[in-house]
Amino acid sequence: MTGVNATGVKESERLARVVLSRIGEPGDPRLTDLVHQLGGEMVLASLRHQAADRELGADLAERLESADPVLELERASAQGIRFVVPGDAEWPAGLDDLAHAPHLHERGGVPVGLWCRGKPRLDQVTEQAVSVVGSRSATTYGADVAADIAGTLARASWTVVSGAAFGIDQAAHRGALANRGPTLAVLACGADRAYPAAHRSLIDYIADFGLVVSEAPPGCAPTRIRFLARNRVIAGLTRGAVVVEAAVRSGALNTANWAGGLGRTVMAVPGPVTSAPSAGAHQLIRARDALLVTSGEEVLEAVGPIGSFTLEDPREPEHPRDRLPRRERQVLDAVPLVQAVDSSSIARTAGIAHGRTKDALLVLHRAGLVEHSLGRWRVVTDQESP
Amino acid sequence: MTGVNATGVKESERLARVVLSRIGEPGDPRLTDLVHQLGGEMVLASLRHQAADRELGADLAERLESADPVLELERASAQGIRFVVPGDAEWPAGLDDLAHAPHLHERGGVPVGLWCRGKPRLDQVTEQAVSVVGSRSATTYGADVAADIAGTLARASWTVVSGAAFGIDQAAHRGALANRGPTLAVLACGADRAYPAAHRSLIDYIADFGLVVSEAPPGCAPTRIRFLARNRVIAGLTRGAVVVEAAVRSGALNTANWAGGLGRTVMAVPGPVTSAPSAGAHQLIRARDALLVTSGEEVLEAVGPIGSFTLEDPREPEHPRDRLPRRERQVLDAVPLVQAVDSSSIARTAGIAHGRTKDALLVLHRAGLVEHSLGRWRVVTDQESP
Repeated sequence: MTGVNATGVKESERLARVVLSRIGEPGDPRLTDLVHQLGGEMVLASLRHQAADRELGADLAERLESADPVLELERASAQGIRFVVPGDAEWPAGLDDLAHAPHLHERGGVPVGLWCRGKPRLDQVTEQAVSVVGSRSATTYGADVAADIAGTLARASWTVVSGAAFGIDQAAHRGALANRGPTLAVLACGADRAYPAAHRSLIDYIADFGLVVSEAPPGCAPTRIRFLARNRVIAGLTRGAVVVEAAVRSGALNTANWAGGLGRTVMAVPGPVTSAPSAGAHQLIRARDALLVTSGEEVLEAVGPIGSFTLEDPREPEHPRDRLPRRERQVLDAVPLVQAVDSSSIARTAGIAHGRTKDALLVLHRAGLVEHSLGRWRVVTDQESP
Repeated sequence: MTGVNATGVKESERLARVVLSRIGEPGDPRLTDLVHQLGGEMVLASLRHQAADRELGADLAERLESADPVLELERASAQGIRFVVPGDAEWPAGLDDLAHAPHLHERGGVPVGLWCRGKPRLDQVTEQAVSVVGSRSATTYGADVAADIAGTLARASWTVVSGAAFGIDQAAHRGALANRGPTLAVLACGADRAYPAAHRSLIDYIADFGLVVSEAPPGCAPTRIRFLARNRVIAGLTRGAVVVEAAVRSGALNTANWAGGLGRTVMAVPGPVTSAPSAGAHQLIRARDALLVTSGEEVLEAVGPIGSFTLEDPREPEHPRDRLPRRERQVLDAVPLVQAVDSSSIARTAGIAHGRTKDALLVLHRAGLVEHSLGRWRVVTDQESP
């Protein structure tokens, strides 16, 4: 078993990927594509060869030289962080879909590895997972809906994946945690760090009860490009993305684009058309890039295996009219709403014989649906229809 | 010209249709389909024949007997109401599409004729027309959005068609009138009457500046089945239907179904998922039966001739980042958001030579996008993105 851990990944391959994770940038396709095709060891050997031949910049050569992956793994481990790579039992198959997805913003490809903080196995916790993402400047409406959807997903044992940001992300994680559901935060900085700093305790709480994941190694700071790369990991780990509120240009739409490119189910929650934070969600639905969803149940119906969670179309409570036999219904439809008329006039409108119309009116009267006075009939109005 | 008016419709045919309009029910397909195929005169002659042979009920025979279409037209004319029939110059071609549309709720077919109150020609006022329909128990949000959309349509010289009901209908008519736009009310009762009674002055105002239309002859009372028949006339007269707020079971969804069956563009305005009056609109969009629209401009884009009104995708105001050259943008994306780092670290993250990175940082600093202190750099944060 020397050099090969229980998961089938050679230790030398894991260590090579630690070095590549440290010297490369998350989602840099020049690195991810090559490593996916050739493996970490071969790519690292090639880089070392280039460094020896002085083809690499002095800085990169120096960093290659000074890399100490064993120490790196030890330090991470002391922080409760492990490095999961392709071939590990807990590597989620969904991430490999990134090999074939279109690049966005010059980012793309299968991560070299993911740094994970928390107890659950990454593959198990993402077996049934949906992301709930949106604006950092969410409205209370958006935050409430995000928490509500996350809660429903959690109660159905689906994992809520998000980015631990202010606004919708936070509401989604909290909605899952409040329902004792698994939740997973994918960060743009190292899994040991907290961004935003105000979410230190939220992120630690997620690590205690769920999983905090990053493509960037411990210690890394968040940068804009790392957020864009991060969003593709969120998409790769999930079966669908729910955009709750998103400005027209926002990270949430970037996540939705990644999810769409990966063939995941993209969903969006509408809001008032007068609310700017909903504009991005409306744009997604208008472009038919996203399915409109209004509840966690609708999300489950969209992402679950076909038939596993089927919603009936929403219905108003049944109206007494629905239980009427056909003839009584026809007569009722012919009774005026305002000015009462005699039964012969109703019979004429309904196209039903006068005697039968009178019988039907008596039935309708007993049911409380029509009223009469001095031989004239009208509808008892209490309904929205017609 | 005896017996033929200027429009090409024989006077005898018009008078026959007056009788049929009076003795029949709006949208009764047993009548409308036959009259569309054979013409009013032939159907009326056949009915009279059946009455003579006592095949018809005594009541119907009596009403046939007592019908006085000339007097009927005179009385209507005294109320400012004319009877428009197929073949008239002002008969809108769109209504004939009803001959081929599926029946709904046992209603359907081309109207025998339409009773019109108001000056504009029916064909001209509906040449560019959209219906704006929705819940009678609308929220202020829904009413505001309906009025806003109607106003935009009116300013673009599109006619707003609705049903003069409480709530969304009222807001739509008022939004059009407030913008001096044409508007048209299709009633379930006679064009001389007002339902609801509280809208008497609104309906009179529409008749003064637009058109009030009904398939039912003057004096007729509104019944549920006449509302269902009325909704098909709204759909026939328009190029598209906009559902603003609609409960799951509502007349507005019935209008949307008619519009869809006629191949018209069905649109729906979203709202908060927590608002029951928006549930019907959301259902239409989810089922892909309706296009999500958020403004009158989007309605115009959807119903206008292709290319006549093209919206750009909504955009956030341009960010200074967008105007940066590629290298400066790459460097900016590599600058940390929180904890400042030195320029060599940024160069490493960006994958750009140190000297060039330093030059780019100076450009970014002059643009106010990065800040530095003691040789360490970080982003000036003010943006929603990433």
